[in-house]
Amino acid sequence: MKRTITHMADGRELIYYDERDDSVRDAVDRRELPPPPAAGQLRHDPLTDEWVAVAAHRQSRTFLPPPDECPLCPSTPDRLTEIPDTEYDVVVFENRFPSFSQRDAWLDGVALPPLNHIRAALGRCEVVCFTADHDASFATLTPGRVRDVLDVLADRTATLATFPEVEQVFCFENRGIEIGVTLHHPHGQIYAYPFLAPRTRIMLAAARAHADRTGGRNLFADVLAAERSAGERVVVSNEHWTAFVPAAARWPFEVIVAPHRPAADLPSLTDEEGDAFGPLYLDVLRRLDGLFGVPMPYVSAWHQAPVRTGRDLSYLHLQLFSIRRAPGKLKYLAGSESAMGVFVNDIAPEHAARLLREADVS
Amino acid sequence: MKRTITHMADGRELIYYDERDDSVRDAVDRRELPPPPAAGQLRHDPLTDEWVAVAAHRQSRTFLPPPDECPLCPSTPDRLTEIPDTEYDVVVFENRFPSFSQRDAWLDGVALPPLNHIRAALGRCEVVCFTADHDASFATLTPGRVRDVLDVLADRTATLATFPEVEQVFCFENRGIEIGVTLHHPHGQIYAYPFLAPRTRIMLAAARAHADRTGGRNLFADVLAAERSAGERVVVSNEHWTAFVPAAARWPFEVIVAPHRPAADLPSLTDEEGDAFGPLYLDVLRRLDGLFGVPMPYVSAWHQAPVRTGRDLSYLHLQLFSIRRAPGKLKYLAGSESAMGVFVNDIAPEHAARLLREADVS
Repeated sequence: MKRTITHMADGRELIYYDERDDSVRDAVDRRELPPPPAAGQLRHDPLTDEWVAVAAHRQSRTFLPPPDECPLCPSTPDRLTEIPDTEYDVVVFENRFPSFSQRDAWLDGVALPPLNHIRAALGRCEVVCFTADHDASFATLTPGRVRDVLDVLADRTATLATFPEVEQVFCFENRGIEIGVTLHHPHGQIYAYPFLAPRTRIMLAAARAHADRTGGRNLFADVLAAERSAGERVVVSNEHWTAFVPAAARWPFEVIVAPHRPAADLPSLTDEEGDAFGPLYLDVLRRLDGLFGVPMPYVSAWHQAPVRTGRDLSYLHLQLFSIRRAPGKLKYLAGSESAMGVFVNDIAPEHAARLLREADVS
Repeated sequence: MKRTITHMADGRELIYYDERDDSVRDAVDRRELPPPPAAGQLRHDPLTDEWVAVAAHRQSRTFLPPPDECPLCPSTPDRLTEIPDTEYDVVVFENRFPSFSQRDAWLDGVALPPLNHIRAALGRCEVVCFTADHDASFATLTPGRVRDVLDVLADRTATLATFPEVEQVFCFENRGIEIGVTLHHPHGQIYAYPFLAPRTRIMLAAARAHADRTGGRNLFADVLAAERSAGERVVVSNEHWTAFVPAAARWPFEVIVAPHRPAADLPSLTDEEGDAFGPLYLDVLRRLDGLFGVPMPYVSAWHQAPVRTGRDLSYLHLQLFSIRRAPGKLKYLAGSESAMGVFVNDIAPEHAARLLREADVS
């Protein structure tokens, strides 16, 4: 793939990733744009010892535009979008309404109690357009394009890890209005956080305790080996990857996709592992959509090792989950989940795995 | 209040709490009901060291019935509901589709990998009907009825804390279909968990670290004192209670309501504190509904001290939050929140507090 780094009219970075090595990307963003917003705030919640991002400028972000106003489609002579060129393969650019950015902070005039620390929400929020085809979805991409996307995420992970303020790079896709997606054009996102995410801290603590208990064994590797051996919750597998429903799944349909060989992050994957991911993941996505015969809302989240800490305790894996529990029913996060963190799952993980194995993928 | 303990046709407990001390509750549940389901499962997630409840029998629970089929209305000669009598003040009963119960566990035939512990989801799930009036809401209750409800929650907390398997009693209300409410009749719920909730563990760890750092000071008490002193995020207050937006609020509109005198749990409140809560909380709820002129979906969650541990580190408070961020827009928990635990709030807490202070409560 050929990578071409460009900048948009307001100075944001935009990177073309092209399948053809002779691609030329010299289209200029001719829009008149205001300067991008400054970084928002990070506020430390003393009651939980966790950081919360406050991004008040996001309240006005683009919300479900009609297809002929999609900002993620290529530009045409009549209509200028976020992508200046008239076609593209995969493109990455800085989010126009970022929760985290490298631009000067907006901290003036905020006086917080002494127990609440505050700092600029430094980092990066990027948008990853998987295809120029507005009506596609990730599940309809070719295995070759999935490989491209994987390489793009690995390239961005490696680059963002060099930013001094970035502690963790999180690549993910939200799909479906049921989960709050505001743009239908198939795209993913990258959040480069300037701290360790709460769930990552919890997973590292559990991994560290396991390593201490077992003379250094990797917790995720042991879980994966046990699931491959049990088989009951495995959805599909190939030479390099296994997709399984975790035995303590929190969501009605939750699948973990992991490489057999331990890898800390996406840049650590081999060529063979990269090639083998697409066919398996596409199979899983089609099974998900085949469950009820309707496109499923989902979150697809890559858990990678942090940039600077706990890398030996980590194990790259994709967590894919849907909030749809039946054709007309969603799983909501209400009191128990949202206020207490106690998840109640109405579908037994073994049953979910069987439904996914038997799903119509025609 | 007079308390009358009865049992439903299937053996579940049902308790009337009556404002009149001469109330007689001898109505018999004449329905033919199958036995209640056995307890579900608790599965330990080794990757996070957290328990997840699997309650497969809940998948068929009652879902948005029409008003003339409401199971929380009193019974009539023509229609038998969950409440046998033809009227009531406040009534509490065991949930028909419980995530936690004291009934024999359903653990047969499940073989989990060695790293996944499994046990019965012992505990209790109760429904609290605030009023017999189907079309009421908590915000339309009288202050006297709010006091009754508070006393009922305190009474249930004290009783459930005596169950040997119960470690924590969680009283809450989910309101609005946007948050997944399946029954419109105004009601709350009580979950008596057989473990400490993940958020409670996190809060206790932060409280313990603060106590260690400060020679024994209570973290929440210090946060509350700082917020009362700053004032900028205070919504309303009276002699015994203050309602404020936390400086690191996770939700578009989040309010913490706390007593000025440290109390571990609802049974620890004094008569005066109990009386002073209703007028203040009703004011907050009306401000919430007044923000956009539409009933707001919300979760209202009482954080109480656990039954057996960390009681000196705890501080009773109510966490009230809404997912509505604008008239036509909801806050969704997508990739960052659901997979990583990183919350992004689009509304500055100071702005939310000002909007609530200025909200139309007429």
